[in-house]
Amino acid sequence: MTSVLHDEIAEQPGVIRQLLIDQGDGVARIAEHIGAAQPRFAVIAARGTSDNAARYAQYIFGALNRLTVALATPSLYGVYDRAPRLAGAVVIGISQSGQSPDIVQVLIEARRQGAPTVAITNDPQSPLARAADGVIALGAGVERSVAATKTYTSELAALALLSAHLGNDSVAKSDLLKLPDALTQALDSEVAARAAAQALAQASRCVALGRGFNYATAFEVALKIKELTHLLAEPYSTADFKHGPIAMIEPDFPVITIATGATTHDELTQMRASLLERRAISVVLGDSANGPQPGEHFVPLPGGLPEWLSPIAAIVPGQLLAYHLAYARNLDPDKPRTISKVTLTK
Amino acid sequence: MTSVLHDEIAEQPGVIRQLLIDQGDGVARIAEHIGAAQPRFAVIAARGTSDNAARYAQYIFGALNRLTVALATPSLYGVYDRAPRLAGAVVIGISQSGQSPDIVQVLIEARRQGAPTVAITNDPQSPLARAADGVIALGAGVERSVAATKTYTSELAALALLSAHLGNDSVAKSDLLKLPDALTQALDSEVAARAAAQALAQASRCVALGRGFNYATAFEVALKIKELTHLLAEPYSTADFKHGPIAMIEPDFPVITIATGATTHDELTQMRASLLERRAISVVLGDSANGPQPGEHFVPLPGGLPEWLSPIAAIVPGQLLAYHLAYARNLDPDKPRTISKVTLTK
Repeated sequence: MTSVLHDEIAEQPGVIRQLLIDQGDGVARIAEHIGAAQPRFAVIAARGTSDNAARYAQYIFGALNRLTVALATPSLYGVYDRAPRLAGAVVIGISQSGQSPDIVQVLIEARRQGAPTVAITNDPQSPLARAADGVIALGAGVERSVAATKTYTSELAALALLSAHLGNDSVAKSDLLKLPDALTQALDSEVAARAAAQALAQASRCVALGRGFNYATAFEVALKIKELTHLLAEPYSTADFKHGPIAMIEPDFPVITIATGATTHDELTQMRASLLERRAISVVLGDSANGPQPGEHFVPLPGGLPEWLSPIAAIVPGQLLAYHLAYARNLDPDKPRTISKVTLTK
Repeated sequence: MTSVLHDEIAEQPGVIRQLLIDQGDGVARIAEHIGAAQPRFAVIAARGTSDNAARYAQYIFGALNRLTVALATPSLYGVYDRAPRLAGAVVIGISQSGQSPDIVQVLIEARRQGAPTVAITNDPQSPLARAADGVIALGAGVERSVAATKTYTSELAALALLSAHLGNDSVAKSDLLKLPDALTQALDSEVAARAAAQALAQASRCVALGRGFNYATAFEVALKIKELTHLLAEPYSTADFKHGPIAMIEPDFPVITIATGATTHDELTQMRASLLERRAISVVLGDSANGPQPGEHFVPLPGGLPEWLSPIAAIVPGQLLAYHLAYARNLDPDKPRTISKVTLTK
């Protein structure tokens, strides 16, 4: 069993290692440029997988840099032609291809208004890159799979690098160096991810749960499952899920929970117990602080990362789960139906 | 067939009429207080149904007031204790009950930092109201149903009223007066909504699509369906949906599309044609500018409202659809399973 997608999943430790080497100096300069503007808030324009990277940025820029992050509503810039005023904002566009016209348009408008702008993209010659003051090139190599994997983790790493430099935070900078090994370790979870995929093979729908930093991971796991397996997969914050949507959990309803770190341990442990009580098929991607409970399909996450960096490794077993779930459902993960790699919304 | 929920849906024209009468002067004062602070951006804290009201605010504050709106990430204020700096922000909390501790906490922190704060709540004596500089009371009366209806539309109307006063926009203010009649007209769509519900009775999942101002409506329709019928219902922007998730649409997959106004007409018409080609069960809530296509289950929306106000009426047939879908699936819409009315996340 081999595939382009599997190869790209396996490339991630090397891609992240190279990104940290290649982009450190450039990101330091970008952070200086942004810092000089003393931004009050950040606006991020992105779609699809990159929108999940923006969700991650909401938490790290908030926690490390005390900056509120707004996800841009590109239709205001495009179809409605009513761009908000961006005085006080730093504006970041995230796009693997750098081609999405509506994301490029947000950056062009931001630059026109004089806000500092950053492009995070795998193509440093793309329209998005050309529209921005500063560019963080992912350097992930060509991503041949339609489902994004290595460009997602490298977008997260680029954002984490920017956050560490914006805060001029030497602990954060040195923590980043732990990422390549953690990603390598995350690849070792493949056997467990494959077993969990078998447990989900007969499902027609599922839910993915995360909290805080790993709220983004729940979104991205759900997106990979939708893209690769055509299951309906809906992401939730556990905080929202327990006050309503949990009503839909019947016996054998599949739920994937991402559980890392100490901060959200008690809340997630309680949710996991509720899911088992309702006899859900409970798949848990958990680290050593959030170990298996009897009855769960447990996929171990690597240790050794601080909580704010855990999402960069936690998505890897999620990618592997979606990959094996495609095979378990007799689908080819290299040939998902009718997904465009490049979003051309205007 | 009668129920508390149905009564509350029917109360909406009267509730909105009264809100516009009672709150105009207070909102004018709140808008003056906010304007004096010259905010650069807005932060809105909300959960569940109220989070969908916040999504609506992203579009109207953007389009009418040129303000970027960030949806708060309450866990940064609470579980992580890393509140962002709020200089330059106006901070709005939206909660029917005004009780949610994590939403209250965002307002308390914002006030501590000196940002202007507003509470939008059905209980002007609630902790949320007490935490804010200004209060917009919904005056919706007790909402007995677990599924929020009249408090959702009155939250939207409160936000629209605030937006019109912030911009001191006399056209917008007079357009608001068209709401009660439009809501009355929206109730007339019940027969069509009931017929559409029959078409969805056998489904196990569905998707709701919206764009721009009615992106929020897609989220709220999906939420009502989940709360009342236990279907898995996932909302999307059509811009995102067409570049990936559309892959899951097989014959008889149910999709509910909200189609209003001229701006997004072409894009939505194209999407509706794609759905019919894929032989989806296509339910369309459409206004006269976005009329029925052969093969659709069409539910008419009232005319006469400008596009920015259309979501306040467009959700009403969506509520009626969810209500009748509950009956069609032998569920009691007044007794959904295990949903808490008050979110007590800390």
